Amino acid sequence: MAEKFIVTPWEVTGDVDYKRLVREFGIKEIDAHLLKRIEKIAKGSHHFLRRKIFFAHRDLDWILDEYEKGNKFFLYTGRAPSGHTHLGHLVPWMFTKWLQDKFGVELWFQFPDEEKFLFKEKLTLEDTERYTYENMLDIIALGFNPKKTKFLVDTKNANLMYREALKVAKKINFSNVKAAFGLTNETNIGGIFYTAMQAVPAFLPSVLAGKNIPCLIPHAVDQDPHFRLSRDVVGKLGYYKPASIQCRFLPALQGATGKMSASEQETAVYTIDDPETVKRKINKYAFSGGRDTVEEHRKLGGKPEIDVSYQWLAFFEEDDKKLEKIYTDYKSGKMLTGELKQILIDKINKLLAEHQKNREKAKKKIGEYLVKG
Amino acid sequence: MAEKFIVTPWEVTGDVDYKRLVREFGIKEIDAHLLKRIEKIAKGSHHFLRRKIFFAHRDLDWILDEYEKGNKFFLYTGRAPSGHTHLGHLVPWMFTKWLQDKFGVELWFQFPDEEKFLFKEKLTLEDTERYTYENMLDIIALGFNPKKTKFLVDTKNANLMYREALKVAKKINFSNVKAAFGLTNETNIGGIFYTAMQAVPAFLPSVLAGKNIPCLIPHAVDQDPHFRLSRDVVGKLGYYKPASIQCRFLPALQGATGKMSASEQETAVYTIDDPETVKRKINKYAFSGGRDTVEEHRKLGGKPEIDVSYQWLAFFEEDDKKLEKIYTDYKSGKMLTGELKQILIDKINKLLAEHQKNREKAKKKIGEYLVKG
Repeated sequence: MAEKFIVTPWEVTGDVDYKRLVREFGIKEIDAHLLKRIEKIAKGSHHFLRRKIFFAHRDLDWILDEYEKGNKFFLYTGRAPSGHTHLGHLVPWMFTKWLQDKFGVELWFQFPDEEKFLFKEKLTLEDTERYTYENMLDIIALGFNPKKTKFLVDTKNANLMYREALKVAKKINFSNVKAAFGLTNETNIGGIFYTAMQAVPAFLPSVLAGKNIPCLIPHAVDQDPHFRLSRDVVGKLGYYKPASIQCRFLPALQGATGKMSASEQETAVYTIDDPETVKRKINKYAFSGGRDTVEEHRKLGGKPEIDVSYQWLAFFEEDDKKLEKIYTDYKSGKMLTGELKQILIDKINKLLAEHQKNREKAKKKIGEYLVKG
Repeated sequence: MAEKFIVTPWEVTGDVDYKRLVREFGIKEIDAHLLKRIEKIAKGSHHFLRRKIFFAHRDLDWILDEYEKGNKFFLYTGRAPSGHTHLGHLVPWMFTKWLQDKFGVELWFQFPDEEKFLFKEKLTLEDTERYTYENMLDIIALGFNPKKTKFLVDTKNANLMYREALKVAKKINFSNVKAAFGLTNETNIGGIFYTAMQAVPAFLPSVLAGKNIPCLIPHAVDQDPHFRLSRDVVGKLGYYKPASIQCRFLPALQGATGKMSASEQETAVYTIDDPETVKRKINKYAFSGGRDTVEEHRKLGGKPEIDVSYQWLAFFEEDDKKLEKIYTDYKSGKMLTGELKQILIDKINKLLAEHQKNREKAKKKIGEYLVKG
């Protein structure tokens, strides 16, 4: 029974069939062999990898080959500011932080503050600039090394970026972006050009260093069309084609209908939500895999595979044994939905208490991360 | 007998019917009344106006209304660098210099160093950057006031320009640029976006000054489609719609086939040509309105209306009486083609001797004109 779902950089709806995405996008699943290889080289394991939250890639094996030869890569990821940060956004960034630490590499973090301005009728550049600041606090709060982390803001670093974007743009025509993103004759000319700006951080560090450096892009899978389009172009410009490692979406509180949306307040938990709000949202909205009555639940057990609280714990509870026990207890009926939700609420509130403390401290640190030019 | 001709910012071919352009572009001819009004306010007359070389406009009457009320305009013109400067390029700039002097106003001079890169397959950004420098020397050599003249280079001033271009771009879609410029699905996405960058200097001075300032754009008529498209957009952004004053093309040496082309060496005289080259090009290529034999010429007279040397003198010989005498003598057969060509050669070589001296001095002055940011 094929459900209809849509995954583009601007729209993710429906129950995403990740197996089908792998085929349609032409990406590769991370298999057991590659997983082991990453863990061996990283000298450590990440639950996002073990649990197939980061599940697919392009050329990751090549990135590891080069790394083993002593040819270090840099990381590139980003955030198109259009609202406050929610927990779904943190997922690729937490993993990026792990990669930075384990491989000891530079991260170039792009804030394409024009993207959502161009694609959302009512959003102004003043809005996206305000959210750039707010989002930066969340990224810094995750603990990225300021000596190895560079923030690129498209409108503020245009002197560095526009020139490089032009080289990309010259090799992509309107037919190409129509096919990749479903743009139309009614799409504005900024939106048509935009993908060229998103390609730039994949090779700008090579331009600035005056030598070719491999690039690895950790990102949520909906961004793949940008890099699918620009990989070949970056190659033709004489730089390495960027590699990528791609993650699933944290489901919306209401259940498996694609990714959480920052524009729909009640589908997401924000990094600035207070403990009471977190409690209320999870208790009120988190889709339950429990049974209609306690009696039935005790007898038949819950369904963790459709329970959003359980799925969120699969993202945020790092301890495999704890998670397994929750799974078993919930599935057997020993644990009730209310208890499961309470575990999630405690977990998220603990995570956010720490995050919000770091977020405050981040306000004084922004200058250390900004690229000049 | 309607000749086929094409006038777009990227192509000018055929025998241009300026009357038809006025109708098709929706611009207005400068009539006797407006001409008198300009001359009165400028306290002077320019032969480009008297001879209808600057022949059309948009909202020039409004610019003068505002000026008389004490609301000064600024001038905006530009040069897309793709080769050395030829005499045809100098025409709008010489007139712009006159406007700057007579009205005492600022000039913002744009060097869109990406435009020709995006539209010419083989041109590199290194090429356009080199020509930006060469072209700057010619502009400075014309004597623009460094205190009132600002050079904007798109790739170097992108921090100032890209953000403003985005606001324009959001209000123009692919259908609009298809209609205005004849772009296709095969046009690259940089070329599609480009017109937004060309719109920016029409209101950037207002953005930077924090107040609305009228803008007058002197330009060759082929650039009109850009401003036709962006005028309304700039208006919607809350700035005055830019006004314009538009000139004809200096004909190619070979005759009335549109404008001189910097990419076809032998159709043009360059500002860096030496006296011998000027002499050779004019003698060899300048299309003649003379008769087949001296006898016939003496008897029937020449045809100044199709003679390129005469037409060039109409651009560069400022003295109306001298020009009229040349016309009469040539038309009557008293003056032979060789003599007419010699007058032009002397005139151009005198102009270029002075220009080349100033061009050398300009090398030390570029810094005074560059906008920082």
